[in-house]
Amino acid sequence: MTETMNWLKGQQLDTTRTQSALGTVSVNNALELVKDKLIEVEATLLRLPDIQPPDLRKAVEMIVSSGGKRIRPTVSLLIAAMLTHPALKAAAAAARAKNEQRVISLASAVEMLHTATLVHDDLIDGSLMRRGASTLNAVWTPAATVLTGDYLFGIAAGLAASTDSVRVMKIFADTLGVIVAGELRQQFTDWAKRGTRDDYFARIYAKTASMFVLAASAIGVVSDCTEEQINALGVYGHNFGLAFQIMDDILDFTGEQANVGKPVGSDLRNGLITLPTIIYAEAHVDDPEIACAFRGECDSATYDRIVARIRQSEAIRNAIAEAADLIAQAKQALMIFPSSVYRDALIDLADYTIERDK
Amino acid sequence: MTETMNWLKGQQLDTTRTQSALGTVSVNNALELVKDKLIEVEATLLRLPDIQPPDLRKAVEMIVSSGGKRIRPTVSLLIAAMLTHPALKAAAAAARAKNEQRVISLASAVEMLHTATLVHDDLIDGSLMRRGASTLNAVWTPAATVLTGDYLFGIAAGLAASTDSVRVMKIFADTLGVIVAGELRQQFTDWAKRGTRDDYFARIYAKTASMFVLAASAIGVVSDCTEEQINALGVYGHNFGLAFQIMDDILDFTGEQANVGKPVGSDLRNGLITLPTIIYAEAHVDDPEIACAFRGECDSATYDRIVARIRQSEAIRNAIAEAADLIAQAKQALMIFPSSVYRDALIDLADYTIERDK
Repeated sequence: MTETMNWLKGQQLDTTRTQSALGTVSVNNALELVKDKLIEVEATLLRLPDIQPPDLRKAVEMIVSSGGKRIRPTVSLLIAAMLTHPALKAAAAAARAKNEQRVISLASAVEMLHTATLVHDDLIDGSLMRRGASTLNAVWTPAATVLTGDYLFGIAAGLAASTDSVRVMKIFADTLGVIVAGELRQQFTDWAKRGTRDDYFARIYAKTASMFVLAASAIGVVSDCTEEQINALGVYGHNFGLAFQIMDDILDFTGEQANVGKPVGSDLRNGLITLPTIIYAEAHVDDPEIACAFRGECDSATYDRIVARIRQSEAIRNAIAEAADLIAQAKQALMIFPSSVYRDALIDLADYTIERDK
Repeated sequence: MTETMNWLKGQQLDTTRTQSALGTVSVNNALELVKDKLIEVEATLLRLPDIQPPDLRKAVEMIVSSGGKRIRPTVSLLIAAMLTHPALKAAAAAARAKNEQRVISLASAVEMLHTATLVHDDLIDGSLMRRGASTLNAVWTPAATVLTGDYLFGIAAGLAASTDSVRVMKIFADTLGVIVAGELRQQFTDWAKRGTRDDYFARIYAKTASMFVLAASAIGVVSDCTEEQINALGVYGHNFGLAFQIMDDILDFTGEQANVGKPVGSDLRNGLITLPTIIYAEAHVDDPEIACAFRGECDSATYDRIVARIRQSEAIRNAIAEAADLIAQAKQALMIFPSSVYRDALIDLADYTIERDK
C-alpha cells in the first residue's frame, strides 16, 4: 500500500469548502472521479520485476510510490473517461474493456517516464532530497542511480508497448528524445541565450509540456479518436503543461519554504532563469544588479535583493497572467468534446494549476 | 562517412588467406554479404536529431561511428537475408521491400541500444578510454554522459518502434530491463555469490546474450516467421551471445595488451570473476591465493601470480571448450532453415567468435 493509495482511499471530499480553498476542492473532485483507476495505476507502477538487492528495491518502491499528485496519469484517465461519452463513436463493449487496460498501461507509462527522468535529474543536479525524502543519489552510488533510472525507462517503455499501439510507442520514444535533448541543451546553453523567452519556453516544453502532450494525445490514439480530436488533446496537454511549469517556477519565488521544500528563489540562485525573472528584466532594464543573475554569478546578498524585488514586482502577477492565458487555451481545446463531468474535471484540473500554492 | 563505413567500402577480401587467419576470412565474408545493408545501418545510426551543442554532437557521432565490429547488426542482417530463401513462406515483393526498411531499423535499434549501455557503463565504471578513444565521461561531465546515454536509449526505442511491430517493441523493452537488472545485480551481488557459475551465466546473459537474442529473434518476428523459427533464432542468438562474451572474458587473460587494449587479467584485477577464474578455482581448490581474488582484495603482486597461473592452466582451454559447445548449439539451431550462403555466413560468424584473437 503506497502513500498515494492510502491518501486516495482515505480522502474525504468536502465540496462545500469555501472559495479560498477552491483549488483543493477542484483537484480532489477530479481525483475522486478516477480514484479506482489511479489505484490500478499505483499497483501497476509497483510491479517492478527483477530489481535487486532488496534494499534497492525498497528505495525504488519508495521513489515510485511517493509520486506527488499523480497529475499526469490523472489527465490521461480523465481524458479516457471523457472519450467514453455516448455521443462519441462508442467502442464495442469488448473493445472498451480491452481499452481500459491500455489506458492504465499508458497512464502508468507516462508516470514511470516522469519518475525515471527525476531519478537521473537528481544525479545530474547532485540533489540529495526530493519530496522530503533522500534521493537514490544521496543514499546509494551514482552507478545505482544511473542504472535505476535506466531500469525505470525500460519499465516505462514496456508499459508503453503494452498499449499495443505502434503509434503510441513512437510518441513515447519521441517524447523521451525531446525531454533528453532539452536537458542537454539546458546543460550546455551559453549564458547569453539562457535568459531569452525562446530558451525558456523550449526548455519547459521539453521538460514538462511534452509529457503532458503524451499523457493526453496518446489516450486519443488508443481510443481511436479522429486526428482532429487527437490534435485537440495535444493542444490541451501542451498548454496545460506549459502553464503547470510556469506556476512551478512562480511558486519558487512566491511559495512558503515549508510548502515548496526549498529556499525562496532557489531556481535563480542555481542559475535557472525562469519566467518571473525574464518578465522582471524586460520591465526593469535599468536594474543594475540583474545582469549578474543572467550570468549566474551574483553573490548571495545580491540574490537576496533581486529575489525580493522580483517578488514585490508586477512580474509575478504578469507571469500568472501568462499561465492563465495558456490555461484558457487548454480549456478551449476541450470544447470540441461533448460536455461531461470528466470534461468539467479536466477544466477544473486546469484551473487548479494556476490556483495551487504548492 | 564513418570509420566503419570507410572500412566496409575499402575492404579488399582475400579468401585465399591461410588457415591461421581463418577467423578474419570468415567474418569478412559474412560482412561482405551484407555490406550494403551495414552501410545503411551506419547512416541510420548517424541520424541523431536535436543533439546539441555541436561539440557534444561530434563526440556522440564519434562514439556511434567507432562502433567496433557491428556484430549485432550483422547477425540481424544475415538472418533477414537467410529468411528470404524461396523455400520459406516468401513475402510478397511489396511487403518484402517494406520489410527491408524494418530490418534496417531493427539492426540499428540493437546497435544503438548496445551503444547507449556502453555510454552509461563508462560512467558507472569511471572508464576514461573505450576503443582507443576518450569516453564522454572523461571529456564531458557526468551529467552529459547520463543524458547522452538516455538520448541514445530514446533513439534506440524510436528505431525499434519504426519496425511497426508491437511485439518487437515488447522484446526491446524486456531486453533493456534484463540488461539493466543484470547490471544492478552485478553492482550489488555479495562477494560470496560472485564467483558462482550461476551468477556468471546470469550476468553474461543479461549483459551480452540478451541483446543477441533481440538481434536474432526480432528479425524472425518482423519477417513473419513461425513460432518454431522465432524460437530457433532466439536459441542461435542466446548461445552465440554467451559464447561471444565467454571469449571476450578469455581474451582478457590470453590477449596481447595491444589487441585487447587493457592489461592482461584486468577483469579479475577489477573484481570481475569470469569463466577462466571459475574453472581454475574449481580445479585448484588448494590454491591458497585464489580466495582473495574471489573477495576482490588481493594485492597487485598476488593478482600478477594468479593471472599467470590461470593463463598457464587448463582453465583457458576448458573455457574455450565450453564456448565451443555453445557455438555448436547455436549452429545446430539454424539447421531448421534451408541451406544458403547466408546460413553459412551465420555459421562462419559463430565459428569466428571462438577463433578471434581480439
